[in-house]
Formats: sequence, C-alpha cells, structure tokens
Amino acid sequence: MTRNRDQDTNPAASARGAELASDYTVSVHYDRRLYREDIRGSIAHVRMLAKQSIVSQDEADRIVDGLRRVEQEIASGEFKWRPELEDIHMNVESRLFELIGDVAGRLHTARSRNDQASTDTRLYVRRVARDTVAALRSLQDALLTVADAHVETVLPGYTHVQRAQPVLLAHHLLAYFEMFDRDAGRFNAARDSADVLTLGSGALAGVSYPVDREFLAKELGFSRITANSMDAVSDRDYVLEYLSAAAICAMHLSRMAEEFVLWSSDEFGFLKLPDDYTTGSSIMPQKRNPDFAELARGKTGRVYGHLIAALTTLKGLPLTYNRDLQEDKEGLFDTVDTLLATLDVTAGMLRGARFDTARMRAAAESSYILATDIADYLVGKGMPFRQAHIVVSEISERLVSDGRFFRDLTLDEYRASSPLFEPDVLAVGVDSSIAARDVPGGTAAGRVKAAL
Amino acid sequence: MTRNRDQDTNPAASARGAELASDYTVSVHYDRRLYREDIRGSIAHVRMLAKQSIVSQDEADRIVDGLRRVEQEIASGEFKWRPELEDIHMNVESRLFELIGDVAGRLHTARSRNDQASTDTRLYVRRVARDTVAALRSLQDALLTVADAHVETVLPGYTHVQRAQPVLLAHHLLAYFEMFDRDAGRFNAARDSADVLTLGSGALAGVSYPVDREFLAKELGFSRITANSMDAVSDRDYVLEYLSAAAICAMHLSRMAEEFVLWSSDEFGFLKLPDDYTTGSSIMPQKRNPDFAELARGKTGRVYGHLIAALTTLKGLPLTYNRDLQEDKEGLFDTVDTLLATLDVTAGMLRGARFDTARMRAAAESSYILATDIADYLVGKGMPFRQAHIVVSEISERLVSDGRFFRDLTLDEYRASSPLFEPDVLAVGVDSSIAARDVPGGTAAGRVKAAL
Amino acid sequence: MTRNRDQDTNPAASARGAELASDYTVSVHYDRRLYREDIRGSIAHVRMLAKQSIVSQDEADRIVDGLRRVEQEIASGEFKWRPELEDIHMNVESRLFELIGDVAGRLHTARSRNDQASTDTRLYVRRVARDTVAALRSLQDALLTVADAHVETVLPGYTHVQRAQPVLLAHHLLAYFEMFDRDAGRFNAARDSADVLTLGSGALAGVSYPVDREFLAKELGFSRITANSMDAVSDRDYVLEYLSAAAICAMHLSRMAEEFVLWSSDEFGFLKLPDDYTTGSSIMPQKRNPDFAELARGKTGRVYGHLIAALTTLKGLPLTYNRDLQEDKEGLFDTVDTLLATLDVTAGMLRGARFDTARMRAAAESSYILATDIADYLVGKGMPFRQAHIVVSEISERLVSDGRFFRDLTLDEYRASSPLFEPDVLAVGVDSSIAARDVPGGTAAGRVKAAL
Amino acid sequence: MTRNRDQDTNPAASARGAELASDYTVSVHYDRRLYREDIRGSIAHVRMLAKQSIVSQDEADRIVDGLRRVEQEIASGEFKWRPELEDIHMNVESRLFELIGDVAGRLHTARSRNDQASTDTRLYVRRVARDTVAALRSLQDALLTVADAHVETVLPGYTHVQRAQPVLLAHHLLAYFEMFDRDAGRFNAARDSADVLTLGSGALAGVSYPVDREFLAKELGFSRITANSMDAVSDRDYVLEYLSAAAICAMHLSRMAEEFVLWSSDEFGFLKLPDDYTTGSSIMPQKRNPDFAELARGKTGRVYGHLIAALTTLKGLPLTYNRDLQEDKEGLFDTVDTLLATLDVTAGMLRGARFDTARMRAAAESSYILATDIADYLVGKGMPFRQAHIVVSEISERLVSDGRFFRDLTLDEYRASSPLFEPDVLAVGVDSSIAARDVPGGTAAGRVKAAL
Repeated sequence: MTRNRDQDTNPAASARGAELASDYTVSVHYDRRLYREDIRGSIAHVRMLAKQSIVSQDEADRIVDGLRRVEQEIASGEFKWRPELEDIHMNVESRLFELIGDVAGRLHTARSRNDQASTDTRLYVRRVARDTVAALRSLQDALLTVADAHVETVLPGYTHVQRAQPVLLAHHLLAYFEMFDRDAGRFNAARDSADVLTLGSGALAGVSYPVDREFLAKELGFSRITANSMDAVSDRDYVLEYLSAAAICAMHLSRMAEEFVLWSSDEFGFLKLPDDYTTGSSIMPQKRNPDFAELARGKTGRVYGHLIAALTTLKGLPLTYNRDLQEDKEGLFDTVDTLLATLDVTAGMLRGARFDTARMRAAAESSYILATDIADYLVGKGMPFRQAHIVVSEISERLVSDGRFFRDLTLDEYRASSPLFEPDVLAVGVDSSIAARDVPGGTAAGRVKAAL
Repeated sequence: MTRNRDQDTNPAASARGAELASDYTVSVHYDRRLYREDIRGSIAHVRMLAKQSIVSQDEADRIVDGLRRVEQEIASGEFKWRPELEDIHMNVESRLFELIGDVAGRLHTARSRNDQASTDTRLYVRRVARDTVAALRSLQDALLTVADAHVETVLPGYTHVQRAQPVLLAHHLLAYFEMFDRDAGRFNAARDSADVLTLGSGALAGVSYPVDREFLAKELGFSRITANSMDAVSDRDYVLEYLSAAAICAMHLSRMAEEFVLWSSDEFGFLKLPDDYTTGSSIMPQKRNPDFAELARGKTGRVYGHLIAALTTLKGLPLTYNRDLQEDKEGLFDTVDTLLATLDVTAGMLRGARFDTARMRAAAESSYILATDIADYLVGKGMPFRQAHIVVSEISERLVSDGRFFRDLTLDEYRASSPLFEPDVLAVGVDSSIAARDVPGGTAAGRVKAAL
Repeated sequence: MTRNRDQDTNPAASARGAELASDYTVSVHYDRRLYREDIRGSIAHVRMLAKQSIVSQDEADRIVDGLRRVEQEIASGEFKWRPELEDIHMNVESRLFELIGDVAGRLHTARSRNDQASTDTRLYVRRVARDTVAALRSLQDALLTVADAHVETVLPGYTHVQRAQPVLLAHHLLAYFEMFDRDAGRFNAARDSADVLTLGSGALAGVSYPVDREFLAKELGFSRITANSMDAVSDRDYVLEYLSAAAICAMHLSRMAEEFVLWSSDEFGFLKLPDDYTTGSSIMPQKRNPDFAELARGKTGRVYGHLIAALTTLKGLPLTYNRDLQEDKEGLFDTVDTLLATLDVTAGMLRGARFDTARMRAAAESSYILATDIADYLVGKGMPFRQAHIVVSEISERLVSDGRFFRDLTLDEYRASSPLFEPDVLAVGVDSSIAARDVPGGTAAGRVKAAL
Repeated sequence: MTRNRDQDTNPAASARGAELASDYTVSVHYDRRLYREDIRGSIAHVRMLAKQSIVSQDEADRIVDGLRRVEQEIASGEFKWRPELEDIHMNVESRLFELIGDVAGRLHTARSRNDQASTDTRLYVRRVARDTVAALRSLQDALLTVADAHVETVLPGYTHVQRAQPVLLAHHLLAYFEMFDRDAGRFNAARDSADVLTLGSGALAGVSYPVDREFLAKELGFSRITANSMDAVSDRDYVLEYLSAAAICAMHLSRMAEEFVLWSSDEFGFLKLPDDYTTGSSIMPQKRNPDFAELARGKTGRVYGHLIAALTTLKGLPLTYNRDLQEDKEGLFDTVDTLLATLDVTAGMLRGARFDTARMRAAAESSYILATDIADYLVGKGMPFRQAHIVVSEISERLVSDGRFFRDLTLDEYRASSPLFEPDVLAVGVDSSIAARDVPGGTAAGRVKAAL
C-alpha cells in the first residue's frame, strides 16, 4: 500500500504498469513490522539446531551474532529494505549472508517459510493482545476514577433515547466498565490461542530432522506446541479471534463515542469534552466539534471491515498453505493500531471530560421518569402490576398534556386515580427512585459503591 | 420474513401497504422459538416472587400452573399465535390471562421486557452452544473413525494446490480435527458468556422489589449474575461471540467442503461421496454432483452475513435498550440452524465417503514431491540448506523437462549433481519421506497413530 | 429456515438428525415465492418450442393449460407443496405430470434448471426493482409534501451534531429527497441488469435445438438476450446490484431514522412521531418510544449482512454453475421485504410527524450559529476570510463565557473587535443568514422553493 | 496507518502514548494523494471568485501562482509535509501563506473544508473510475487475444467442478469478457455519480457570496451541480458505488483466479502460468506456485472489507457532515490500488499462459459429457425429454461401471436401450456436441467467432 502511495506523489508514477505486477507479491513494506519477532524466532531456531547437533555450536554462534547485528541495523533505521526480496524473512536472511557469509545458509535448515511466518505472527498477536488488555485496563481505570467522582450525580437513564428512569452517573459509567471487562477476557483468549509453537511443522508435513520443539517453545515463551503440522501452517484462527474481539470492542467504543457526541450537543449539554479532544471549524468559528469521538465511532467500520476481509480470504481454501494467507497481516496491523489509539483517545476524553451535573439532574427531574416508581408504589399497596401500569399511564398522559410533572401532583389528585395512594406517595422522587433499586447490579448508591 | 412470504403466495397480498407497517415490529413468527425458555424464565421468576413474599404462594401456584398449560398448548401445536400481540412474551402472558384471570397481572412484577427478553436469549444461546459442541464432537468422531482406517493411506500434501510433500490421509484429516477442536473451545466460551443471569435488572436500573437474584440464577442454572443493570439490558456480546465462533467454524467447514468438491472431481478422483450426498442433473444424466458439499461451502456466506448484520446493528447505539436490539435473534437462529445442519451433513459425507487410495498413492508417486527429502539428504551430508536447495532445484527442472521422476534417477545421475550423494539416496521415496517427518505434529505414522 | 423453525415448536423435533441432512438442499420453502415467474417462464418456453416445431401445437396447448391450472392451485392456496421435490421447479413440473400426463415431459426440452432458475430470478429482480423504485417515489412524495409545509420553518443545521448554521426544514428534508433520488437511479440500473434473457443457455453450453431466443425475450418482456451461455448460468451480478443498491438505501434510511430518534427525544423535542409509529413500555407507562424508527435503523444490519453473504458465497467459485448459487435467493427476498417495509414505514412516520417549529426556531436563535455570517460580513467589508475567522472566534468565545448570543451585542461591542463593523451588522440574524445562502443548492427560501 | 507503521521500526516508539492521540485525527499521510485534485479545485475556486469580483483579479493571480508553486514542490518531492496541520488542505494552504503572504487568506472565502474535501474526492473517484475501466478494457483485450487463438480448443465445460458438456476454450474465456464488460458499466456509473460539483455548498447551507457554480463545474469538468447543499456535504454514495462495483469485480477476478489455480494443478494440468507469475518455494525446490493467482483470489477479502467498512461508518449518522466521514478515503485508496494491480496481474497471467490443449481435449473425451447430446438425440427422434433423460442415465451408469465411454458403444448396445437409436448416433461426439449448440450465446464455433 505504502509503496503505491509514495509513487503517487510522483505524477509520472501514477501510470499503472509493470511495476504494479512486480509489487504484487511484496509484503516487506508492512511485514517488516515483525522484524523483532522474526529475528527472535530465528535465534531460538538456530540455538535449537545447535543443541540437537544439526548445526555446530560455532555456526550457531556466528548466526546468532549476525542476526543481532541485523536487528540493531533495523532498530537504528540504517537497514536498507529491499522490496525485490519480497518479505521480512528474506530481507533479514539476505543481509545475514552479507554479514556472515555462507554459514547463513544453515539457518533455514529444518524450517520453512510457512512455519516461520506463522511463528512471527503468533508472537506478534501474543504481544499485541497483551497490549490491548493493558489499554483496556487503563480505560477501565479512567472509568473507575470518573465514576468514583460521580456516585451522587443523577441523570436520566435512557431507553430508546427516551428518558426512562433516574440513575447515577457512576452506574452508567460502570456499565461500560463491564463491557470492557468482557473485552479483556476475549483478548486474553485470543492471546492464549496464539500461544502455541508452530515451528517444526516445516512446509506442511513436519521436518525430517531431530528437532526439539519443546525446547523451541520454551525459548520463545510458548506454553504449548501444535499437534498437527498441516493444521499448523494453515491455521489463522488466532488472527480471527483477535479480529473478532476487536470488532466487539470497537462496537462498545462506538456506543460510548455516540454518547460523548450526543451528550456534548447543545441539546443534551451533559458534557464538555476536553479542548485537546475537540476541534474548531474552518468556517464556523464558534464550533467545538467532538471530532475524536466521531472518529472513534467511525473507525468501527474499519475494524469490522478487516474482520470480514480475513474471513473472506480464508473461505473455501483447501489445505494447506495458500498464498492468500499472506493477506492475514495488513488488516490485523491496522486493527491493532486503530484499537490501541481509540482506547487511548477514549480514556483521554473521559478523564478530561467535565460533566454538567446540574443539567443532568434537571433533565432527570423535568420528566416523567418516576412513572415506574409510582406504579411500583401501587403494586406495593396490593394492585397487580399490569393494572398499576394502566393507572399510571393515565396519570402520565394527563401530566404531559398539562405540562406538569409528578412532583407537581397533590395527594388528592393522586387519590382521584386510585384510593390506594397515601401521603407517602409524595416522597417518591428521583432520589428515592434510585435508592429503591437496591438489588445486586442496581443503581442504588450502596450497590454502586460496592461495585466500585 | 415468514409472514411476508406466506402473503406472497396470495397474489392479492403482494401489494405493499398498511399491513407491512403494522407487521414491522412483530417478532412472534420467529421469537416463538423461545417459548420454552420464556416460560421457564417466568416460572422461576414467579417462584422467586413467592419466596420473597412479593406475591402469595397461592398466586404463584396458579401462575405456574397456567404457564405449564400454555407450554403444553404450544408444544402440542394447539396454541393460537396472535401477531397483533407482537412477541412471544405478550402471546404467552395474554393467554395466561385468559386461562387464570387477573392474577396473571402479578407475573410481570419486578420484571421488564428488557431483562425478560435477555434471559430468554441467554438460555437459548447456552443451549445451542452446547448443541453445537455436541455436533462438533460428532464430526470429530467421524474424522477419527475415517482417519483410523487410513493411517497407511498416502496422498500428496498440497500447498498452493500443488503437490508438495507426501502425507498420510489420517494426518490430513486430523488437521481438521484440530480446527474443530478449537471451534468447540470457542463455542464453550460463548456458552460461558451467556451463562449469566440478567433478571432483576428491570428496564435498565434494577428493580425496586426485594428480589433474590441468586435464587433466580440457581433455578435457571446460571452460574453467576450480572453486575450492572444498564449493561445487562444492553449487552449482546454473548450473541456476537456465538456468531464469531460460527463464522470461524463455517470457514473451516468451507475448507473441508472445498476439498470434498475438488477430490470428487474427475481430475483429482480421490473421493467418491456417498449417493445420499450427491444429486443428479436435470439435463445431464451422468452427473453425480457434490451439491451438499457445495452448499456447505456456499452457506459460509450466510453465516458471515449474520455476524456482520449483528455488528452493524449494534454499532453506535447509546445506552441502554434500543429497539434495534430486537434484530439480534433472526440471524442467530438461522446461524444455529445452518451450522448444526452443515456439521451433520459434513459428518455424514465423511463417514460415507470412499477414498480411492490407489489413485492417491499414484498422485504422490508421479510427482516431484520428494525434492525436499533429497535436499534434506544433502543437508544431512553436510551441505548448507540454501545450497542444497539450489542443487535439487536443478535436478527437479531437468526431471520435469525429461518427464521423469526422482525414482527414475540413477546414483550416477545424482552424483553428477553433487559428490555428496551416496547409494542410500536411492532409498528415498514416498514412504521414507513420511517416515522421516518423525517430530511431534509430523506425518510419520507413529506420530499420527499417537495423535489418534 | 421456515421448516426448521416449525419443527422447533414441536419439542420432539428439536433433536437434530437425519432430517436435517435431507432438508439441506431443499429450497421450496422459500423459492415457491417465484411460482408466478416460474410458470410464466415455462409458458413462454413451451410456446417457443411449438413455434419452432420442437413440440406440436397441441402438446404446447395442453402444457400451457396445465401450467395455468397449477398456477391457480398455488394462488388459491390449495397446492400441496412437497419438500421432497426440493424446489419450485420440480414441484410445478411434478404436479403438471399429475394433471396432464406424460406430455408434461416435453416441457423441459431445450432447457436446463440452470437457465430456468436464472430466468425466474431475473424476472423477480426486475419486478421488485420496479416496486422498490415505486416505494422510493412514494417516500419522496411524502418528503415533498412535508417540505412544502415547512418552507418557512427554521431550525439549526448541524455538523458534528453541533448547531452550525440556520437552515429551512424544507431544505433539510430535500437533502433526503436527493439521496432517495440517487437510490432510485441505482435500483433502475439493477433492473436494467436483470432485464436480459438467459433461457436458451441450457446447462452451460447452449442447447442443441433450434430455439428462438429473441421470441422468448419478447414473450417475457426482456429487452435483450445474454451473449454467452457459460456466463449466463453463472452470473448473479444483477442480484448483487440490487443488494448493493439496497445497502446504500438502507444506509440513507438509517440516517433519517437516527434523526427521527434524536429529534423525538426530550432533549431535541423537534418532533412528535405519530402514535401508530411509537410504542409504550411494559414497565414505564409514560414512554412513547420511537420503535419503528429504531427498527428502521437497526435493520440496516440485516441488509448489509445479506450483501456480504452473497459476495462471500460467490467468491472463488470456478465456472459455471455451482450449487452454492442456490444461496442467492433467501437473502435477496429478505432484503426486498425489509426494504419495502422500511420505505413504507419511513414515509408513514414522516407524513404523520408533527414538528415543533417554535422549538426549532428557538434552538436556532439561542446559539452561536450566526458566527459564519458575521465572518462573512467582515469579508464583505474587505477583510481576508482567515482573519475574519479569527476575529469572530474571539467574539464567540466571549459570548459563550458571558452566556450571551450575537443578537445581544451592541454596535460598540462589535466595533471593539473590528472597526469594519457598521450599523448594518445588527441586521444579521437567523432569517438574514438563511436568505443570504442564495446560491443554487443553498437554503435561501427562493432556492428551496425552486427545488420543490 | 503509515505513520504508526514507521514508528514501529523504531522500538522506542512502540510504546503507545500521547502521540497516538495527537495523531488520531491526522489524515495527511494518506489524503496527500489528493494534492493535485485539491490544488486544481482551489485554482478553479479562486478564478471564480475573481470572475465574480469577490476577490480582485490581482489577488487571484497571486494565489494561482502560489498554488502552482506548491503543486510543483509536492510533485518534485521537496514539499515538507506537516502532520500537525492534519490534512492535505491545511498543508497546502499553510504553505501558500508562506509563499505569498496574507493574500492567501482570501482563498478560503465562500468555501468550507466540507465542500472542498468532497470536491477533491469526487475528482479522484472520477479519475480512478476511468482508470479502472481502462484496466478492464485491457483485460478484455487480453481475453479476446487468447480466445481468438483458441476457437478450436475443446475442453470440458464444468458445473459443480464436474465435467458437464464440451465447450470451446474461446467460449469459456468470453464468459469472463462478459463479466468484465458489466463491471466496466458499473464503474462508468460510479464515475457518473461522482461527476457532480459540490463546491458552493459551504459548510452545509450554501454560501453567502454570489458564487457562480456553473462556472466552477465547467472549470473542473463536472457535468452538473448538486441540488442541495446539506446533501452535498453528507453524500458519499459515489464512494460506495465505486466500492460496490469493486467488490463485484473482485468477485469475478477471484473466480478467474480460482480457475488459474485449479487449471495449473497437476490434476487438471490445463495451464502453465508464465514464470513471472509463479514463485518457487523456500523449502521445496520443485514447486512452481501460482502465487499471483492466489493473491488475486485472496485480495477479494480486502475489497469486500473496505466496502463493509464504508457502509458501517455511514450507518446511522445524522445530517450533515460528521468527522466519521473522514474514514471514506483510506479504504477507497487501497481498493483502487488493489483492483488496478489485480486487473493488471490477471491480464499478464492470461497473456503469458500456455494452455495444454491436448490435455484439455483428452479430458473432454475421456468422460461422460456426451450424455446430454445422446438424450437430445432421443428427443429428436420423438421421445419426451424426461424419458430420454432416464434412458441415458441408465446407459451412463453401465458405462461408468464398465470403465467405458460413449464412444465405445456399438449401435446394438445403443438399441438395446431404445429402438429409436439409429446409425447416426455413432456420429455424436465432442465436436458434434459443440457444433450442435448453435444458438445465440452458445458454444458452437460459428457463434463464438461471431461473438469475438
């Protein structure tokens, strides 16, 4: 992708042509991101070869030294990438030949690009799954911090974007805490799926050398080894698991982002996003646009797209390795970048957000969200729920048409609807409503504090 | 979907019109599939209400009796579904009123359609996830049975649909065993995610009755309860997890189906599918088409589609319940039906398949798939792998242009390429190649038998 | 799908088993929807066979009579569908045999199920594409009617869900008119793609009878014939085009639905949806939830899903017909049903909606959306735009922190920011802002009326 | 994406952190690809401003000169991109200020980033749609060239990957010609949808200057102007149309690629791909893998993914511009690159492919694909088709079990099945079969030559 893009800045290169074809199989512009994994895998491999006397210890030492020099060259930016060598593996190995000579040719003994590439990707998924969990934990921390400051902030809980019942802001935020907790569980599962050594599977059938796969697993920190070589070189489940977990997580982030956008509108006015996370307009000087939240919401598309791309690519492929599988990485990389950045941005927005608690409470009070509580009141006095529902519906409709709220009703007015109403009905309010939801998982302050 | 379709068989009804609008929110034509879950949930709920003295024991008994009668009516087919009541919940409750009178109105105390619907769906996902694992285990059994009969059957292992290295058919089949094993793990995880009680969350904020959620969980066999009511009524992660696992599993099935199709072609000729799983042609009398395998492959689309549908529906929804969430079920139901049927069909095809083992071996022998072994032979004699690779490439090219195979080479011809060749090179063949892959996960017979 | 579902209402049938396998290839539960197309195609075919003397005129007459009787039986509901015959084609033909005897066997001369099925689906897509355009036109009518009543209604135009510049409600609604106009264009294109006769392509290679394909095209109202028989039996582009157009249209509908939901919230309060298009709550008596709009938004998922399903199914299939292609119809049918219903529902919601024009105007006036106009004012006095932008940003910020609006500024205050301000700046207001957008496509009343 | 990737080559930068957040809204690393479109649009805009006396002619001249210098700097690679300016628009304008001073501030008069960005993207889509059609035409040329050389090459036509009826290779290839022809039609439609001027729509409501939109359209070669400013800044239909057309086209390419892969297998052996389009193996020296065809097939996933990404991003967005829309470009760019490269690669593979015509004919002859012809023969003698189908099925089954083919049957053997067989049945063969499909669209040589 990059290479085409750079050409495009040169008008002469915008002509399509032979160079597109020759680029077609090249992956080094993106898979070089795996250089540390690739070199780490090679070092472990050659150590194993020496341990098993497949190469000599001296040969192994020279190869390991050479690989370390290659790694330093890449890390420092002095490495010269050669697209004509196609991928990260051949770029590294080719440079190794330059640095240490023909002994480099022993490195690929008892190994194929198929099990090598799979090893690199598994090491990568294992690492980024851990990073993603860390970013989720950081966002959860932010949620806890903000929730902790708002165990007394009341706002309307919504269903159908209609005010439904009063809740504590802390309770609302902890709903997201739960979502991200499940997300972390899924990324840990993806990490576990990736945590299996494939080296030793060769091209597809295993290798004909006395390799020690358990030693390799230990060197590379894998907790187990694959049981079938043909599966090992074909399997991309761990990529799909990461992508599936990412899609669900992006969905959660999109819901939170939607609320940031709505809440920071003039109409809701619940939220002022921090300046670093809003932008102005090129034409409308007064605007403070929630661009970061919008992008967090919009980038959901990209994450879903990468999932469907990987699923499509794998559909209907016979065993074992097919070159289609090379398409497993670019979308994964972009998913990881997108998700980590969005998690960070979301945590940042949340930590810096200022909530207009007065406006939230006013929204809760100037509405009809006590209706359920009044119905529950009648049930408490012995009326079946469905009947109570009807009585309160009639009261609500009258209030709406009069422009009044429950707090404006007198006891006589209540009793005109049902003789079951008694003076204590006048104590039913936003705060009593919240206090009444005193069940595990409910919004009562004690429950929310316990959850925190 | 159904209702529109049935209308369509009546031409007069094909005119679009008001009836479409009135149908728009109706779900009972598909969610009635959940009737057992719905009634089971209601019985547990009313028992809890009685235990907590929110309703009397007598009321509870009458409601439970009524619910059991409703269940029997549905099971026997005599229940009259009423679309105008929209969903399964109101159909059941409405009939309950008819059967037991106004006491039915107490059932919905301390409950909302939001936590009720979520409970039904969770019970359903928990059940079908278990069914799916059972179907996977059955398919794995079939793989083991067939693999067991083919621990000596040799065929070419393929990469890029090119013959690559010889493998045992048992080894090839066990690769799928591994895939379906991971699939089962994912469905178990989805089952675990569904296995949480949401009742008691009310519409969104919890309920204002002294409900006993742990009792409910125990009654319904849930292993734990949700920690946040707003999350509980919004969460569909467990549906997405089932759908994600299904998409990956459908992908695996599509790969196996693709091999059934290819292998039963005249060109491969490795496989004869059982007659029950092929169909003839309306115009070409000689055809034995692998329609079941093709549908197993084609239905992958449907499963991917339902996943992306659910992800799309959830994208960008603010908390908590929005009616969009009603769209969670139809695609799920169809995914379950598709997957269970495809797993069954695949197991059936596999159990009844006849493998042409002679043709498989011939394909392995009349090819150049020993090249890796010859290269490994040279490495064993001390040549670096990359150099051995070059030597064997030259031999292979010469053989291809002569229309000969490795088995046709004399020792002198070998030695013309490298003096390292010795008489034992003539023992390198398809069987020695397989035997040499004697590493954990490799195709050597001992390893494959151990795996079995 | 249906058959499995119905079984499910019988608990005994919930056990998976052999019946699932035998159902696997059955399509008659959904493709019977095509019975009119199928019979129409057969009648045209047999007439052509008679015209070309491939069958006798008497045979043709008897077959046509028989087909008409089958059609009547289906239309009246007395036809007995037989799943074991798999599809609509064999159900019709089998009944034809019963009704007219062996002469029925001549009907399938010079025809294959491949070109027959394609003909049915093309006739169907042609018809529903026309229906979809009609439904779009009806929605456009509703937009025009409502827009016509609101050429003087002012509301804030939004970007980023932030009030940006005042616009006329008519202008806002006409934006959707444009979207649906483009949608209609795409459905017409899909209709045109379907409007090609495939009969005469046989199974894949053409037929060995002297058929008259132009006659067939004329009989069936197709405007042209396919040029390649192998393409003809493989092509599903016209289905994909309908599904692509549907996905874009569903996206437009989801945007309008989102605005219905937001605008009918307490926070916006711009809109009261008609009672027929809102529903109450099972627990919260006061709720008037925009369920129809939410479902219109949520069903976007289903439509996207069917598109990706069809694309997935077709990916990587070699020529020509493969049974995977049977999967082309169910998603299409559901897309058509979903889209037609959503278009109707949307038009109904719109026609019945009541707009709170006072609240809309108040929202426009109590905000900073005149900032662009003030900046443009300065530009009109000679200041470069970017500088004017800076000046007005400073004024806006001051106003925001003072809780005042532009209408509250005195000339002196304006002049403190720039000496270019003159008394006419005080005439800048919401109405002058709208009037100033007097360019083609702009929101000035004259332009909007012209557009109407 | 790029920026993150580059960071990744520096280990120190792999730590996530504040820089990710600050990058989050940056698009210049990919939207700079639009620099020519952006500058072309600005030049037209400022010319219009001068024509309408909104800026002076001298100011316009200085701005145009400045813009041209910026364009040269970018084209030559000396332009210094500044991520902190976020996008292409601000990078260009900022440099313009440096080059020509404050007069640059007049450029953005009567324009917003919203209509500016839309103009750039429309110019781009218009251009690449044309490029895509050109690439399709080139591939169609390749198909014609190869088909022209193979009007006498016979191979089995397949359904269900089973040999069905003999066809000419030219006929088979022309099926793809038809597909790509329809694809070209769809890209032309996407081009037409993009071919509308949006400038003059301002941020959302139009502009308050006397702009001449028709002049702008003429300058930029747009054939018409948008009718509604709010629609204009929200509309991304033209992007979706390109992506939809791309998805269908990628599907077609994946089908052709699948055939390249299958046909170049040992089992089919119909095709030898040119060396430039195959690759060797790192471990198996004999392999000639069809990597390019596999990638052409695998990249279908990427194209589908970008479509679903864009659809997802747009779902449920209220009017008008939301920052989510920034996500419209990266997937589009990658789709264009992928598609153009794949079209080139496919044409290259095709032009260089060598077909093994002897093996193709042998495959056609050593099979039962004459069965339809024999059945048609009986129909020609007066037997109803369905009965003929039964007779020939029996013959076929006997032949299969005897390992014989139709060509091996004697007249007596034929007559044992039906007395309608006469000596001319012995003339039925692969060539007569093809010749018999002499209908428009059929595979008879005359028809195919006419099609060519």
